[in-house]
Amino acid sequence: MKVAPELLDEIRWDQAGLIPAIAQDHADGAVLMVAWMNRESLAASIEEGRAVYYSRSRRKLWRKGEESGNRQILREIRLDCDGDTLLLRVEQIGGIACHTGRRSCFYRLLENGAWRDVEPVLKDPREMYPPKRG
Amino acid sequence: MKVAPELLDEIRWDQAGLIPAIAQDHADGAVLMVAWMNRESLAASIEEGRAVYYSRSRRKLWRKGEESGNRQILREIRLDCDGDTLLLRVEQIGGIACHTGRRSCFYRLLENGAWRDVEPVLKDPREMYPPKRG
Repeated sequence: MKVAPELLDEIRWDQAGLIPAIAQDHADGAVLMVAWMNRESLAASIEEGRAVYYSRSRRKLWRKGEESGNRQILREIRLDCDGDTLLLRVEQIGGIACHTGRRSCFYRLLENGAWRDVEPVLKDPREMYPPKRG
Repeated sequence: MKVAPELLDEIRWDQAGLIPAIAQDHADGAVLMVAWMNRESLAASIEEGRAVYYSRSRRKLWRKGEESGNRQILREIRLDCDGDTLLLRVEQIGGIACHTGRRSCFYRLLENGAWRDVEPVLKDPREMYPPKRG
């Protein structure tokens, strides 16, 4: 599906031209992660039907799952009332969204005054990502 | 509950000293809204057991529901893997999180190439907020 520029113009991009996107499991509502999109990555997401983010550290598009295989198939895209946050309802391929090998990035629970890891690591990150080149 | 500074130090506050917080309905997982917190508002949230945000436009703490009555009781606070986004699991008093009178702020669905409002207005915003002073 080709994306009309007007659709992107309705978004309140921040000063860096970005908008945060929340990825939520479409099946059970679990919040999986938050990442950023720019115009190009949102257009690519819509056209390809999968989550394509913009990596602020690497300064380039990042097709979620391009290394790990854990793609996010888009079921729905929503925009909030003031147009500055996206909500993606996704099918999480592989059942793992977090680079730590956990299902969700939100695995640190505030409990008795400290952050405690409460979600299991489902897969060793070394198995998810190819070794970095020197 | 008094908040230890170390707990707040583990957060990767942005350059403005803020972190985005996603409010999610604890009962059915609906994503309700996203707002911002600073150290003071997160500490107040923890101590008071309700969502206290920082309003960037008004530059002050904002106890969610202070005008509308639609408070958010905190059931859980989670932090993500890189420490720069919070997930609040809340009980939404009044069943309305959005200032437009809808349950969720994410009521604009991308459909056939355009954003379409797909959630009903449950309460007239004029009934939710007292008239602004001239």
